[in-house]
Amino acid sequence: MVQIYDTTLRDGTQREGISYSTEDKLNITKKLDQLGIDYIEGGWPGSNPKDIEYFKSVKKVDLKSAKITAFGSTRRPKIKPEDDQNLQAILDSGVEVATIFGKTWDLHVTEALKTTLEENLKMIESSVRYLKEKGLEVHFDAEHFFDGYQANPEYASQVLQAAQAGGADTLVLCDTNGGRMPFEIIDIITFIKEKVKVPLGIHAHNDAEVAVANSLAAYEIGVKHIQGTINGFGERCGNANLSSLLPNLKLKYGVDFITDQQLKRLTETSRYINEVANLTPPSHKPYVGDSAFAHKGGIHVSAILKEPKTYEHINPELVGNQREVLVSELSGKSNLVYKAKELGIDLGQEDADLSEVLAKIKELEHQGYYFEGAEASLRLLIERATGDYEKLFDLEGVRIITEKTEELNPNSEATIKVRVNGNQVHTAAEGEGPVNALDYALRKALLQFYPELEMIHLIDYKVRVLDGNDGTAAKVRVLIESSDGQETWGTVGASTNIIEASWQALVDSIEYGIKLKRDS
Amino acid sequence: MVQIYDTTLRDGTQREGISYSTEDKLNITKKLDQLGIDYIEGGWPGSNPKDIEYFKSVKKVDLKSAKITAFGSTRRPKIKPEDDQNLQAILDSGVEVATIFGKTWDLHVTEALKTTLEENLKMIESSVRYLKEKGLEVHFDAEHFFDGYQANPEYASQVLQAAQAGGADTLVLCDTNGGRMPFEIIDIITFIKEKVKVPLGIHAHNDAEVAVANSLAAYEIGVKHIQGTINGFGERCGNANLSSLLPNLKLKYGVDFITDQQLKRLTETSRYINEVANLTPPSHKPYVGDSAFAHKGGIHVSAILKEPKTYEHINPELVGNQREVLVSELSGKSNLVYKAKELGIDLGQEDADLSEVLAKIKELEHQGYYFEGAEASLRLLIERATGDYEKLFDLEGVRIITEKTEELNPNSEATIKVRVNGNQVHTAAEGEGPVNALDYALRKALLQFYPELEMIHLIDYKVRVLDGNDGTAAKVRVLIESSDGQETWGTVGASTNIIEASWQALVDSIEYGIKLKRDS
Repeated sequence: MVQIYDTTLRDGTQREGISYSTEDKLNITKKLDQLGIDYIEGGWPGSNPKDIEYFKSVKKVDLKSAKITAFGSTRRPKIKPEDDQNLQAILDSGVEVATIFGKTWDLHVTEALKTTLEENLKMIESSVRYLKEKGLEVHFDAEHFFDGYQANPEYASQVLQAAQAGGADTLVLCDTNGGRMPFEIIDIITFIKEKVKVPLGIHAHNDAEVAVANSLAAYEIGVKHIQGTINGFGERCGNANLSSLLPNLKLKYGVDFITDQQLKRLTETSRYINEVANLTPPSHKPYVGDSAFAHKGGIHVSAILKEPKTYEHINPELVGNQREVLVSELSGKSNLVYKAKELGIDLGQEDADLSEVLAKIKELEHQGYYFEGAEASLRLLIERATGDYEKLFDLEGVRIITEKTEELNPNSEATIKVRVNGNQVHTAAEGEGPVNALDYALRKALLQFYPELEMIHLIDYKVRVLDGNDGTAAKVRVLIESSDGQETWGTVGASTNIIEASWQALVDSIEYGIKLKRDS
Repeated sequence: MVQIYDTTLRDGTQREGISYSTEDKLNITKKLDQLGIDYIEGGWPGSNPKDIEYFKSVKKVDLKSAKITAFGSTRRPKIKPEDDQNLQAILDSGVEVATIFGKTWDLHVTEALKTTLEENLKMIESSVRYLKEKGLEVHFDAEHFFDGYQANPEYASQVLQAAQAGGADTLVLCDTNGGRMPFEIIDIITFIKEKVKVPLGIHAHNDAEVAVANSLAAYEIGVKHIQGTINGFGERCGNANLSSLLPNLKLKYGVDFITDQQLKRLTETSRYINEVANLTPPSHKPYVGDSAFAHKGGIHVSAILKEPKTYEHINPELVGNQREVLVSELSGKSNLVYKAKELGIDLGQEDADLSEVLAKIKELEHQGYYFEGAEASLRLLIERATGDYEKLFDLEGVRIITEKTEELNPNSEATIKVRVNGNQVHTAAEGEGPVNALDYALRKALLQFYPELEMIHLIDYKVRVLDGNDGTAAKVRVLIESSDGQETWGTVGASTNIIEASWQALVDSIEYGIKLKRDS
């Protein structure tokens, strides 16, 4: 079997820009427990006062299987373990499991710790023993193990033996700088496992894009304790990615260490942690990304509808993800039928309707529209083509003026005239730029008739120049993502005029949002 | 040695949202050649009319070492190779190297191709032979090789043998669905290499986050032809990432297949291709990411200043990247020296000048400017900071009006007032959109004073939304590429107002161009 040790809450937060509140950390802890993680490293109580609060609160959380661990270093040189604040903080945190790291690379001992190789071994042994005597389960993280082994194999072995002598339950081999290849991991572990009796663990970093493979290589030669983070969060290029390691171990190696139901929580957990970290989930991430099971070509899709394994390495439902069929120029009728079903749109039985919609999509995509990220526009398009469409307002005219001088930043103002249910509204607004002014003026004009607009916000606005070779006369595509606080939807516009492209995406966004609020 | 086969321009474009112009593809081709890539797969002439234009133009490009290859499928069932449009398109493209793929998985032959296993073998053999007889070097891509082997090892072997009988130069084993583990790659290749005599290749996908490791595993057991894409672009989770494979092979395996100078181009090439694809370069990517060698200060930083290898698996300069020390002024200065050296700018000897330029760059990059693709703006910035700058005109005012109604596409008009050498010019122009109108009006105003403007054209215009969360009020960055028919240069602007950002990039572009023509 295998032990999964998650350090999303400690090493994972070393990634720039990540900062969790205590509440965030407690919520993530629950998610990790539901996923079937064995150990959750909650923080470093000796270095971070916020972590102390977490350890206090997490005791009240009812965990099904996970054990909470506290992280810290071995004692400082030349003092007794009981006098070391860092070890004391671990004990004060009230955990039953501790993970302490020690220097394994001789260079770091003499240069960074400024102590002797001999004293470092004593620090490791006595620190582990002290925590063991207090009744804790103790994992020892051998920092820079692989680099240290290469520099001085004898000393790196002595470090592990010191931790073993202190009573460590696991000796975790760390590739701290993340540059080792799988063949090196195998060679070094094969050698070292003859030197110690205690079970080994692996802690890999992804600086050479092989952290997942290094963890699996270690597993293959008998290492049954694997450390990593959800989404591979961590400093520089990140830690070994548990979002890929968990399904690889269960589905490819057939290790039955979590249940099918737990594995189904993977995608949700990954996306939840991205949300809490305030990061856009990368769509191309293995297993959990939005595009991990996306299909573009018509041939692919019709093959998949018959036999999914033709173009899918696993059934996406196993990891709680789903197949995504993209509607684009390349796609055939089968893509559209699939997509419409997913959107809950009844396309009717008649083939004629379908060809019309398909022809329209192809024509628009040829003009530069792109429906892959704009399902709301696709839905409105289908409604318009099938006659099931109600127009919310008519535009009579809009004028946007932008003025600037050398000294002043430009000022943009939009005036707009629209007709809603027979009433003409004529109003104006200023904005950060011409599109922003247009956005504000349109909302201002419509709000009295559609108060649900108050709830609808733009959350993302993207501009892509489609054919840069035409310089500033190039065609642009605008993608807008909107939200009502619960659901989000994407819309698209394309034109050689950025105002026109933005207008199209804006109008679709507002129409779709208002209809959504009405239907709910 | 090892052959690197790049498919950024073909398989890489399967990633959602990527669409290159012919000009983009030619520029990428030059970059890949400078990096030392052996084969550049330019496209699929039989399936994409745009690719035909590329193959025509690429013949005029002077490549140092790379060979251009055309991609395609084996002939259709029951026809002669000479009657197959797809094979004909490859020949018409005028390449000296072709890569054709064939079905290797019996399920795909009967279900997708709707032909017999026997006929498929004939299709493969005769298609390869036909191209060989025409004098081409031919790589055979065995699609779904590993899945096919698992389903029917006997048939998968026969497919390779058919390609071998036809005279294929390389038999490329594809993990098309991207779900295989390194141990499976090793097991299957170990078996298959006894069955064929022709050199093998590997084409991996990253659906289980081990594409780099799978390619390396294949290399270790004798596969010397490796396919992949820069940045790992590709459908779903992408292809094997050459941005990690190249440095792993050269620096970790010690394979001397590209020069040190070529490897130093890696980071720039990776970022260039991201820019052209209009994707934000992911900062945490191994080797090439902005944060790949980032250090959070404190102990790490002082250790690194003494001995970089304590916390860096390689020297970042080997791949053209740089250490990022987040708290140190010193690191900033070396960044600038590094950048300036790369651009061939003489910063002078004085420390004072340097600090001033540095402070300005830091301030501007904080505001959203990005000088990586905008050397001309960086040069003007340095000239302004060092006093070596002549202003060509003063803006007194500009006003842009865009009007639209529901029926009519919008019309944009710019009026501009500038002062050149004491003369005031007041003029106006219409354009495809507000930025285009501004561009035309500015040129119209300046042309009588600077006739060299006639030669200067915008060849690319890109807009990136920097913080999509603010919707249409988000900050945008505009990158403009200009040319006088001989040289090309990039400029940048950033603002919450797209007009202002475009104005900045436009003015830099014109100033730089006029000065360039004068100096020459």
